[in-house]
Amino acid sequence: MSLRHGLLGLIAARPTTGYDLAKSFEASLANVWAAQLSQIYPELGRLHEQGLIRVLGTGPRQKKTYEITDEGLAEVRRWVLDVEPDRAHRNGAMLRTFFLWLVDPAEAEAYLRREAAIHRGNLERFEEMAGREPATPSAPLPVEWAVRYCRELAEWSEWAADRVRDESRAARA
Amino acid sequence: MSLRHGLLGLIAARPTTGYDLAKSFEASLANVWAAQLSQIYPELGRLHEQGLIRVLGTGPRQKKTYEITDEGLAEVRRWVLDVEPDRAHRNGAMLRTFFLWLVDPAEAEAYLRREAAIHRGNLERFEEMAGREPATPSAPLPVEWAVRYCRELAEWSEWAADRVRDESRAARA
Repeated sequence: MSLRHGLLGLIAARPTTGYDLAKSFEASLANVWAAQLSQIYPELGRLHEQGLIRVLGTGPRQKKTYEITDEGLAEVRRWVLDVEPDRAHRNGAMLRTFFLWLVDPAEAEAYLRREAAIHRGNLERFEEMAGREPATPSAPLPVEWAVRYCRELAEWSEWAADRVRDESRAARA
Repeated sequence: MSLRHGLLGLIAARPTTGYDLAKSFEASLANVWAAQLSQIYPELGRLHEQGLIRVLGTGPRQKKTYEITDEGLAEVRRWVLDVEPDRAHRNGAMLRTFFLWLVDPAEAEAYLRREAAIHRGNLERFEEMAGREPATPSAPLPVEWAVRYCRELAEWSEWAADRVRDESRAARA
C-alpha cells in the first residue's frame, strides 16, 4: 500500500493535478519506490472516492487540482509512524556478484567498471537534485541518502573491480 | 527470473540438497533478493526437469543431492553477463522519510534513531558473515557491500536524526 501513501504524502506537500503528481512522483519517490505511471491515476481515483483527497478546483480542459483532507492527513501520518516499513530488499545487480567467479575475470572486471560508471552518473543526478526545490519539506533527507548511496556503490564497484583484477593476476603468477 | 538463476548459481558453487540450498539461500542471497522459502522447492523441480541440474546421489530418507550440468553452467554464465540487472528499487523505510515533516519532530527523530539502531545491528551481522565461509567464491564482494551499506545507512540515520532535532530547535528559538 506504499504507492497510495506516497501519493497522499505528495498531495499533502502541495495541492496538485494528476499530471503534476505523476511528474513529481517520477522525479522523487520513484527513486526509492519503483511503480508504473499507469498505476497513479487509478490510485488517485481511489483516494478521492475514499475522501482522503478532494477537488480544490478545476482548470482549463477539466484538469482537476486535488488537495488533502483532514482524513487524508491523519492516514498518511498514521502510516509514517505506525506501520513497520517493508524491508524486503531486491538488488538484481548485487545478486549477480555472487556468481561473478563463474565468468572470465576480465569480463567480471569490465562488468564492475561499467557498474561504477552507472553509479557515478546517478551520483551526479542526485547531487543536482539536492540543489533543486525539494518534493516535500523533508525530501532533503532521502536525497542526501541517495547521494551517499550512489557514492558508496561507485566506490564499492571500483574496489570490487580492483579485487577481481588483483586476484586474477595473483592466480596467473 | 532471478531466483531461478540465484539457485542455479548456488548449486554451481557446490552440490547440495534442497534443504541445504534453502538454508544457504536464506543466509546469503536472501539479503539482496527477498523470496519465499516456499518458492525454492518448485523452482528446484523446474531446474531438474529442464536438465540444468541433475541428481548426483540420494542419501538417507531419499534426500537427493543435486549438481549443476554443463547446460546449467552455461545458463547461469549467460545470465551473469548478458542480462541487464533489474534496477527497479523499493525501499519502504526511505519512502517514508519524504513525509517525516508531517509528524511531530520528536517522533521523527525517535524514528530515525530506531532506524540507526536497526542498521547498526545489521552491520554487526554482516561483519560476522564476512569472517565465515563464503556462500560462493565471489560472495566476499556482496558481503563487503552489505557491510558498507549498513554502515552508511546507520550514519545517514544519525545525521538525519540530528538534522530533524536541530531544525526543530531552531524553529522554536
